[in-house]
Amino acid sequence: MTSQDIELQRDELTAETQTALERAEASHRHEALFSERAHNIKQSAVRDVFDISVRPGLVSLAGGSPSLAKLPLGLVAETASRVITEHGMEALHYGTGKGTPELRALICEIMAEEGILGASPEDVVVTTGSQSAQDIAAKVFCNPGDVVLVEDPTYVGALNTFEAYQVRVEPVRMDEDGLVPDELEARIEALEAEGKSIKLLYTIPSFNNPSGITMAAGRRQRIVDICREHNILVLEDNPYGMLRFDGHPLTPLRADNPDDVIYCGSFSKIFSPGVRLGWALVPKHLYRRFYLAAEAVVLCPSTLNQLIVTEFFRAFDWRGYLAESRAVYAERCKAMLAALGEAFPREAFPAEEGKGIEWTTPEGGFFVWVTLPAGIDTYPLLHEAIDAGVVFIPGAAFTPSDTANSHLRLAFSGVEPERIREGVRRLAPVIRAAVEAHAG
Amino acid sequence: MTSQDIELQRDELTAETQTALERAEASHRHEALFSERAHNIKQSAVRDVFDISVRPGLVSLAGGSPSLAKLPLGLVAETASRVITEHGMEALHYGTGKGTPELRALICEIMAEEGILGASPEDVVVTTGSQSAQDIAAKVFCNPGDVVLVEDPTYVGALNTFEAYQVRVEPVRMDEDGLVPDELEARIEALEAEGKSIKLLYTIPSFNNPSGITMAAGRRQRIVDICREHNILVLEDNPYGMLRFDGHPLTPLRADNPDDVIYCGSFSKIFSPGVRLGWALVPKHLYRRFYLAAEAVVLCPSTLNQLIVTEFFRAFDWRGYLAESRAVYAERCKAMLAALGEAFPREAFPAEEGKGIEWTTPEGGFFVWVTLPAGIDTYPLLHEAIDAGVVFIPGAAFTPSDTANSHLRLAFSGVEPERIREGVRRLAPVIRAAVEAHAG
Repeated sequence: MTSQDIELQRDELTAETQTALERAEASHRHEALFSERAHNIKQSAVRDVFDISVRPGLVSLAGGSPSLAKLPLGLVAETASRVITEHGMEALHYGTGKGTPELRALICEIMAEEGILGASPEDVVVTTGSQSAQDIAAKVFCNPGDVVLVEDPTYVGALNTFEAYQVRVEPVRMDEDGLVPDELEARIEALEAEGKSIKLLYTIPSFNNPSGITMAAGRRQRIVDICREHNILVLEDNPYGMLRFDGHPLTPLRADNPDDVIYCGSFSKIFSPGVRLGWALVPKHLYRRFYLAAEAVVLCPSTLNQLIVTEFFRAFDWRGYLAESRAVYAERCKAMLAALGEAFPREAFPAEEGKGIEWTTPEGGFFVWVTLPAGIDTYPLLHEAIDAGVVFIPGAAFTPSDTANSHLRLAFSGVEPERIREGVRRLAPVIRAAVEAHAG
Repeated sequence: MTSQDIELQRDELTAETQTALERAEASHRHEALFSERAHNIKQSAVRDVFDISVRPGLVSLAGGSPSLAKLPLGLVAETASRVITEHGMEALHYGTGKGTPELRALICEIMAEEGILGASPEDVVVTTGSQSAQDIAAKVFCNPGDVVLVEDPTYVGALNTFEAYQVRVEPVRMDEDGLVPDELEARIEALEAEGKSIKLLYTIPSFNNPSGITMAAGRRQRIVDICREHNILVLEDNPYGMLRFDGHPLTPLRADNPDDVIYCGSFSKIFSPGVRLGWALVPKHLYRRFYLAAEAVVLCPSTLNQLIVTEFFRAFDWRGYLAESRAVYAERCKAMLAALGEAFPREAFPAEEGKGIEWTTPEGGFFVWVTLPAGIDTYPLLHEAIDAGVVFIPGAAFTPSDTANSHLRLAFSGVEPERIREGVRRLAPVIRAAVEAHAG
């Protein structure tokens, strides 16, 4: 099994067991005990398909897994061993709810590399992956019915997290330069007129998951200003920020707005998802409640992993490694774009005949977002794609409503270029047939 | 700094900074954005004292830290190194939301050792410490205002977790055999008559934290039956179950009640808190929602730590290690009981003169619970104890109301016998003076 299939395996149940379980759940005597929010925590239709989609030989363009191929495993192993031998009594014990001071200092160095200068380790909370930082933000700020604004489309994991707090998630349109400021403002005003309480704007400004779109540098301050004016906090999720292909990270929204932005970072894409370490850089006046909420969930992040990551980054040329990683992802992205260009030449798919197929050209990150002619539902296409030996994620997964749409997410991050080409070759006839049928 | 001080360091802020921060929070423009539940996530008065109580030379009888002194660090280091070298591509990647099948199988073996026979790995969710399992249970079952029944006293971390969900926590009295069934029943009926919705009974049946009291074997089924009759789920937290001094774990409530009990276990006390791995064994009909909620918080528990723990337990005589650990804790407990007996001989503290001092005699676990004459508030005594060079946790921390009471928790688990004796020697005059003043 390849690494990129792992995300597909979240649920190993077969679809049949699943249905049986759902029946059992519906009729048991504890049904009445579930909280209201529990009904919002659901397995999406997309994940159901994942369950039956793990097959040997399948090319997975679904999971957004980082490439770990160039990680020096020997050095990681040696670091882990040394941490346990020399600092075992600290590494294997409880730590503080905020994370170790050494890791928080390292995190500030990493953020400086991205353009957040002068952040204090005192304002950092180490979390169990950055997903957990989003969970804490929702917990600390959102009552049921409160609004969280998100990009359309946005990260499926964040949607799951917000929906678990019974939040009303409102997607705002992006164009090729990211979130559209005027639309954001208009939406906020409309929601305010409705009497809604808007708490957060959740944004992935650089190489948005799933679309690969980047919020233009010139637009970033305007977005924060709009939120500030309406007293809305910005929750900036930036796991891919350092993976800009040209090597120059775009300045995060947080950089010049320390009081208005909660910034979420992660070691998952720049080192390893398996250590489950991320962080939040929190405005000083919000810090105490944020870290106490973090502590109430997990007591503390894994001390062992915090020490391993700290020591490893101290011993390792991580800047050089990131440069290598960027080259890997750039090459894979290029392979995917070329394969798409070959599979769907513009002249063969004329937009004026309702056959236009478009895709984004990411400047970094892990994903390409493909748009088929409006009216085609990509969800049933997934079943056909699986039969053809390739898997992707239908666009519906990345919207709060989960309603059918004509987009699909293709991840290039965890797949070798040759397999990417093979995957697109397998996918092409499925898409071609759908487009022809739709136009005809 | 000794390991047992680490729990004290949760918040490194001084009390003054704390107050300044609280003022800043109260006046900032984002104050209105906090969720209702955020106001329930508070730093307890007890933790405030912790902040100023970390001093070199202090004997800490406060933190409930395991003793790791007998852990073979070399073998742990070697295992970690091998896992990364040989299985790095799996260990450093994302895993499934349920945990690895291998670790779930190991967990079933461990539970069998405690008396839970035939549990299926399919019903286990690996969590980021067992605190996280409690968080998920609250999330899945509790609406604001719902009732969770707990033992009086109960684990401060669970109280923090439940209160973050705006749950009404109702403590039920224990006697020397644990939760009193008749009182439990009466309380349930009174709450039902009030129209309250009771969702969970949270219990630490073996060597309760903080009291060290054990729910008698003959009482266990009755407790579950009462809950079943009233359609209340039992949330059984059993981190110390295997640490019964005589080596024979009491059969958990879960054993014969697979449909009515969510069982929480942890590697923190039997191996290492630093890996942050615990688990929940969940009734089949509740499993799906439980693990989806877990996934929404952290995506997956740390794969690296799961592989390390699995491989380490496979290579290690963990049953032998537990036997050694039990002997360590039994010796420390004995040292504490002897020191208390010496410091407070019954004849010098006659109950009939309002001077009676009592303490529990635990059969296992980490804690002794001391009861001073009613009317003495142990909270101000903590300040005096710190001045005398010893720290404990006042009983108020272990009640939902946080109101003054005459109990104190003494942890013997992480302290060498000689230091335990020294700690009690330092504590004795403080308590003696308080008792004399109160009686006089």
